[in-house]
Amino acid sequence: MNSKTKNLQYLKSSNQAAIYKHLATNGPTSRAELSREFGLSRMAITNLVSDMIQEGLLLEGEPAALSKNSARKSIALQIPDYCITAVGVLIERYSVHCNAMDIKGNEFYRDCAPIPDDATNELLLNIILGLLNKLFEELPGYNFSGIGISSIGPVDIETCTILHPTNFYKVSNFPLGNILMSEFKLPVYILNCMSAATLAEHLFGNARGHRNMVYLGFGSGVGSGTIINNKIFTGSKGFAGELGHTSIDPINGPVCSCGQHGCIETYTSTRVVLRELGCSSFDEVLEAYDRNEFSLQQWAFFENYYHAVLTALLTAANIYDPEIIVVGDQGSALIERFITKLTRQLNCLMIQHGTRMMDLKVSAFGDKAALIGAPCIVFDQIFARNLPPFDYS
Amino acid sequence: MNSKTKNLQYLKSSNQAAIYKHLATNGPTSRAELSREFGLSRMAITNLVSDMIQEGLLLEGEPAALSKNSARKSIALQIPDYCITAVGVLIERYSVHCNAMDIKGNEFYRDCAPIPDDATNELLLNIILGLLNKLFEELPGYNFSGIGISSIGPVDIETCTILHPTNFYKVSNFPLGNILMSEFKLPVYILNCMSAATLAEHLFGNARGHRNMVYLGFGSGVGSGTIINNKIFTGSKGFAGELGHTSIDPINGPVCSCGQHGCIETYTSTRVVLRELGCSSFDEVLEAYDRNEFSLQQWAFFENYYHAVLTALLTAANIYDPEIIVVGDQGSALIERFITKLTRQLNCLMIQHGTRMMDLKVSAFGDKAALIGAPCIVFDQIFARNLPPFDYS
Repeated sequence: MNSKTKNLQYLKSSNQAAIYKHLATNGPTSRAELSREFGLSRMAITNLVSDMIQEGLLLEGEPAALSKNSARKSIALQIPDYCITAVGVLIERYSVHCNAMDIKGNEFYRDCAPIPDDATNELLLNIILGLLNKLFEELPGYNFSGIGISSIGPVDIETCTILHPTNFYKVSNFPLGNILMSEFKLPVYILNCMSAATLAEHLFGNARGHRNMVYLGFGSGVGSGTIINNKIFTGSKGFAGELGHTSIDPINGPVCSCGQHGCIETYTSTRVVLRELGCSSFDEVLEAYDRNEFSLQQWAFFENYYHAVLTALLTAANIYDPEIIVVGDQGSALIERFITKLTRQLNCLMIQHGTRMMDLKVSAFGDKAALIGAPCIVFDQIFARNLPPFDYS
Repeated sequence: MNSKTKNLQYLKSSNQAAIYKHLATNGPTSRAELSREFGLSRMAITNLVSDMIQEGLLLEGEPAALSKNSARKSIALQIPDYCITAVGVLIERYSVHCNAMDIKGNEFYRDCAPIPDDATNELLLNIILGLLNKLFEELPGYNFSGIGISSIGPVDIETCTILHPTNFYKVSNFPLGNILMSEFKLPVYILNCMSAATLAEHLFGNARGHRNMVYLGFGSGVGSGTIINNKIFTGSKGFAGELGHTSIDPINGPVCSCGQHGCIETYTSTRVVLRELGCSSFDEVLEAYDRNEFSLQQWAFFENYYHAVLTALLTAANIYDPEIIVVGDQGSALIERFITKLTRQLNCLMIQHGTRMMDLKVSAFGDKAALIGAPCIVFDQIFARNLPPFDYS
C-alpha cells in the first residue's frame, strides 16, 4: 500500500492492531477501559474486537470471573497464551542464539551455538539452519507468525541482508532473510540487535508505556535504538542509531573500527574495558570494582569511561529528547555502579534541564535484551500493520 | 482526537492534506499524476479534490491550457496564488524578523527590528506586537491561516512558550503563543529556529522531495532539525536536535553555555569563528579565507573547526541515517569552502559507507532558512492535520 495515503481497511486493521498491542503489553483489559484508553465508543471497540474474538485471537474473560461479576462491562478481554508466537534469531560475533516467544512476552524456548573465528556466509547459514530445524522439530504444534532476526550490524532491513559486520571478515552481503523465507515459508524480518533490544524494552521491559525512548547498548559494540511515537526508528535505510560512533576526540582519540578517532565505542565497549583493566571476564571487572581492587592507573581509565558514557547519555537526551533512556547489554552492569551520579549529571547538563526529569534505567533483560527482542521484531510488524493472516505478497 | 486510533474524517482529511502538500511543493499536477503518485484511483482522487475545488482551495487548469488540450486527464490541478497564507516571526538574540508567505512558498512581506541587550519578556513582546500590527495594517486583504514562531530555543511547543534562551538573561518562560493568539485571533505555533529552518528546506529548499533529512545550522548557536518520514521530529517535548551540544572533548574542551565541556558549538559557532580569527564580521572571515590571509595560528584553528563540523555531520549521518544533510545559517558560507572534502570524508567514515552516497548540500536560503521556515510551521500543521477552516478548540 502506498504509505502517503490511507484506506478503510488500513483504518480498521490499524485500530485493531493498536488494541491488540495494548492487550499484549498491558494484560487483560475491559471494553470500558479500552474505550477510555483509545477515545472510541464502546460500540466501536466491540466492532473492532468481534472479528478478533471469532478468529480466536482474543478471549472474553474467564468463566470464573463471569460468575463472580455479572456486569458485562467488567469482563476483561485478553490474548490467549501461545495464540500468536514467533521465532527469534540473534546473531552475535561469536554465537548464534534462537528462541520462541508468544506475543505477550512469554519466552518458551532458547538455544545457542558458537560461531567459529573464520565463519563464512555458508558456515553461518548452516549453524542457523541447524538451530532452527531443531527448534521447529522440538516445537511441532506452533503456528509461528514469522522469524525475527536480531543481528550484528550493519543490516539492510529492506532486503533483509547482513551487510559487512565489523570483525566478521568472511561474512558479507548475506541475504539471510530470503534464504530463511524460502526454507521455512514464514515471513522474515531483520533489525540490527540494538533496535531489537529497544523493541524488547519498549514492549515488555523497563520502557513499557513510553511513546519516546532511547536504548543504549554497551556490549562488545556500542549503539542505540530509538522508539519515536511508539514506532522503532530505523532511519531511511536501517542504519540509524549508531551513537557509539559519535566521536569525543576526533583528532587525538584512539582509532575506531569505523575509521574515525575517539568514538564513544573506543572508550566504553566491553572489549575495551577488559583490555584496559587487564581483566579476562566482565564478572572479574565487577568484582574488582566492588572490592575497590584497582590501581590508580586503572581508576584513571574510569574517568574517560565515565565521561564517554555520560556524553553518550547527553547526546541521546539532547538529540532525541526521549521520555526515558534505558542502558543495556553486558556493560550495563558496570554502568549501574555509576547510575546515581550519571542520572544527576544527565539531568543537570541536558538542554531540557529544569523543565523535567529524564528517567535513566538499566535494562530489564540485562545482556539478553537483543535476544528477547528478536521475536519482538515480528510482533512489532503485527502491531504496526496487520494481524495474521498476513498478506505475504 | 486520540492519536492511537483513527476515524473516517481523519482518513479523508489526511489524504486531502497529502495531496495539498504535493501540489504546494511540486506545483501544478494532473489527476493522473496524482493517482500514480498516491496509489489511489482517479475516482478517489476526484472525490478528494472536489471539496477543495468547491471551497476555492484548488483551481483546475488554466482556460488557455484547456483550449490547447481537450483531453481531460491533462488538466492540471493547482493551488491559487495567495490562497492560503501565513505570518512568520523569527526571534533571534539581537533581532526579531517577520514575514508573510503563501503555501506555495511565495514570500510577499518582510520586516525586522532590533532587540536591545537587556530585553525583558515585556519589551520583547512590544517589539513583536509592533512588527505584527504593522504587518496586518499593511496587508489588509489577507485571510492568514496562522502565525508561526521560529524562535531561539529552548521552547515548549505544547504551551507555545519560550523557556530560558541562552544569553537572553531577562527573557524566560515567555508564553508568547497564548498572547498572540488572544491578540490576533489566529492559531499560533512555535518551533525552535533549527526545526523551522528544517521545514523550509524540506518544503521549498534543497531537501524537497526527501522523506528523511537532517538540517545542521551553524549560526551563533549550532543545532539541527530532522524530518523523519516526511514529518518534523521534535522529540517528546520539543527539545530534540541539539546536536551542537554533542561534546567532542568532554574533559578538556572549552566550557559551553550548557555546562558541558567541548560541545561542537564551542568550536563551530559564528561567535567562536569571529573570536578565534579576530574578525569583526563573517564577510571578513570569508574574504580572508579566500585570499589566504590567515596566520599559521589562525589556520590551526581551522583544524579543530573542520573536525568539529565533520563530527557533527558524521553524528547526524550515523544517528539519523537521512537521505540528505543540508547545512545552513551564516556559517554555511564558510563550510561551503570545505564541502568537497567534507562530502568525501563523510561518505568514507559514516557507518553506511559503501552501501550508498550521503548527499550534502548548502541551504537554499543561506542564513534566511529560519525566517522562511517561520510561516512553514503553519503550513506544516495544515499538511499534517487538516485544511482550513480549522477547528481551533
